[in-house]
Amino acid sequence: MAAPADRPANERPDDGLPRVVVVGAGFGGLAAAKALRPSPVRVTVIDRHNYHLFQPLLYQVATAGLSPADIAAPIRSILSKQRNVEVVLGTVIGIDTTAREVVLAGRRIAYDYLVVAAGARHAYFGRDWETHAPGLKTIDDATAIRARILLAFERAESTGDPALRRQLLTFVLVGGGPTGVEMAGAIAELAKRALAKDFRNIDPRAARIILLEGAAGLLAGFPQTLSDYARRALERLGVEVRTEAMVEAIDRDGVVVAGERIGTRTVIWAAGVKASPAADWFAIAADPYGRVKVAGDLSIPGLNDVFAIGDTALFLDDGGRPLPGLAPVAKQQGAFVGKLIGAKVAGKPHDRTFRYLSAGKLATIGRSAAVVDFGFVRIKGLLAWILWGAAHIYFLIGFRNKLVVMLNWLWAYITFQQGTRLITGSEN
Amino acid sequence: MAAPADRPANERPDDGLPRVVVVGAGFGGLAAAKALRPSPVRVTVIDRHNYHLFQPLLYQVATAGLSPADIAAPIRSILSKQRNVEVVLGTVIGIDTTAREVVLAGRRIAYDYLVVAAGARHAYFGRDWETHAPGLKTIDDATAIRARILLAFERAESTGDPALRRQLLTFVLVGGGPTGVEMAGAIAELAKRALAKDFRNIDPRAARIILLEGAAGLLAGFPQTLSDYARRALERLGVEVRTEAMVEAIDRDGVVVAGERIGTRTVIWAAGVKASPAADWFAIAADPYGRVKVAGDLSIPGLNDVFAIGDTALFLDDGGRPLPGLAPVAKQQGAFVGKLIGAKVAGKPHDRTFRYLSAGKLATIGRSAAVVDFGFVRIKGLLAWILWGAAHIYFLIGFRNKLVVMLNWLWAYITFQQGTRLITGSEN
Repeated sequence: MAAPADRPANERPDDGLPRVVVVGAGFGGLAAAKALRPSPVRVTVIDRHNYHLFQPLLYQVATAGLSPADIAAPIRSILSKQRNVEVVLGTVIGIDTTAREVVLAGRRIAYDYLVVAAGARHAYFGRDWETHAPGLKTIDDATAIRARILLAFERAESTGDPALRRQLLTFVLVGGGPTGVEMAGAIAELAKRALAKDFRNIDPRAARIILLEGAAGLLAGFPQTLSDYARRALERLGVEVRTEAMVEAIDRDGVVVAGERIGTRTVIWAAGVKASPAADWFAIAADPYGRVKVAGDLSIPGLNDVFAIGDTALFLDDGGRPLPGLAPVAKQQGAFVGKLIGAKVAGKPHDRTFRYLSAGKLATIGRSAAVVDFGFVRIKGLLAWILWGAAHIYFLIGFRNKLVVMLNWLWAYITFQQGTRLITGSEN
Repeated sequence: MAAPADRPANERPDDGLPRVVVVGAGFGGLAAAKALRPSPVRVTVIDRHNYHLFQPLLYQVATAGLSPADIAAPIRSILSKQRNVEVVLGTVIGIDTTAREVVLAGRRIAYDYLVVAAGARHAYFGRDWETHAPGLKTIDDATAIRARILLAFERAESTGDPALRRQLLTFVLVGGGPTGVEMAGAIAELAKRALAKDFRNIDPRAARIILLEGAAGLLAGFPQTLSDYARRALERLGVEVRTEAMVEAIDRDGVVVAGERIGTRTVIWAAGVKASPAADWFAIAADPYGRVKVAGDLSIPGLNDVFAIGDTALFLDDGGRPLPGLAPVAKQQGAFVGKLIGAKVAGKPHDRTFRYLSAGKLATIGRSAAVVDFGFVRIKGLLAWILWGAAHIYFLIGFRNKLVVMLNWLWAYITFQQGTRLITGSEN
């Protein structure tokens, strides 16, 4: 074979160009890498997975609406034409700030500039609930939750025990943010429409879907009118919404909330995330959500040319409030840091303070029901739902993905069916 | 909630109708269930998975061309409108021919008529090769093989060891039947086209793809001209085809064939299958491929109203040759048995001898290259490829699947890209 150059890949011939290492190929990391396209630098993008995941639609994989590949694209493909980028599949286990190297299992990658865009995992506030209440952050999370939901209906169909059947047909979502609201709506539609006629011993339409939120209203951060609308729209779908409902315990057989036990075999956690362990890597303090406090230019104070963006970063806006963990925040921060590094390398001046331009907030509840908050205007119902769909299609990476997702949605809209109802991942 | 009737599901109120149990919802089992639609019987279809799998396209999932959901449809959906059918998700662990019950974990299902359509798994002729040479029968097999192939390129990209890199970029297919031929062609196209520009340290086009076949030619059972054409078409794609090449050993580092060791980290097994353990369930003799010999009406001799079809059955044609393990054979046998049982129940006469009407044999090699053998006419090249595609689209279950697969193929044809290049199933 035409053998490639025989040298360790981690010792690329030194072309003297500044080395920029980006940890994480989510919205922030990709934006940073792309912003460095015109710069004379050598960019290395490191990710644990070989694909970039469009997380805003992950709940649709978990509820059998889309296939994993519809919302994920290989990082190598996305960046294949940007010749100053190399992609490395690997898990970062530490950062050596003295040697200025990112540490992977069996390998170290040197940097001159470092961008940490390592995202977040779900967090349980120190409780031991993960086994019984999985969260939704990766494709494997989503296919596991999909299997769990579908298996609950299967087991309800085959059991002869009415109490167990009621437990199996009860689904509890913990957390009333966008993910909890979207999951609750999607499970309700799955049970009441797609599965309605498929069973003989149970009526899936009788399934109970319960959404628990600790605060007084759903969709914290959205205006009251939209929060109230979301609640009404969910209730129209048959979802029981309970606010000011703090979860006290979760076990194999159910959830305890405000002293009351709800029997269920399916609990899904959408109540909190914690940043990836960037703070540990630098041995610096993090906020309770694991985020690293950054300066106005997104650099980590005390470290030289090291930046944190997206879910990894705690960035306070002019009012002293942290920016939320949203895709547009990560994207804008990535682009800002990419341009800042490009300017530094070129010796040019650059705006030293990141400013977030709100792109609006969106959440969907179900068929023809969504909320959109642009700040100056608030929209709900069908128009918001169309806007939500258009925005998500628009921002999906890859023309193929856009087309396939549109087709899937059109199909689901016309037929009320969900296309990807597969129980995979274990031989049962 | 509107509770369903409180009774064990396995004790449906006895409506006095004959109970037909179908084990397996592959091509044969589904055809049997559907043929019983007009009959006054109670059909129970049991499968280990909640989906029917269109196996002829499974290799495209393994080579990143299609998503699992594109070639799989929920069994419940397929049969939801046939009210005399109940679907049970479960694994059969035995059959009690005295009590006339199918035994599942924790449950027994009584039958008056039994159709065993339990399919086949890959088999290694008693060798311990499965770990190093996985086969392709289920969706989980396919996504695991997809991850293995993609990870080989990833590891080749990141290693500094040229010998290891050569091993990682060598792919060996064992078995020159349709699956081996189709996999070899698909891996060659993946390496030489879809991945061509995505790496920086390796050239995926330099990958070696080796197809090993023990017999003198590829595609046993096809006419010599088509077999020769398949070989030439594969070689044009850069595949090394070795016939009369018996595999002697397979381990972590490679394959030994005719005394020669081929260093590789990716071996895929397409050399043999063995029927599911139906023979064990009945404690009767099986042929070396695990198949149960059936009478002319597909019943198992010595058992009352028990039938075996598809890969489970050894059925000899007029020339005394066993029918091959193909979808059309299973489908026709399923329909035959369904109608036979319907006639028995109705007390009507029925043809007592199954006859296979050959629907032709097809195999594809790659872009614009396939072979079709209708017996009276043999076709190869572009026309065969179009026929192959049209036939597979036509037989795919579900309009949505047809549309999505067509779209995927069109996309791949125009762009040379593969859409589902995801490494999933483990956090790495």
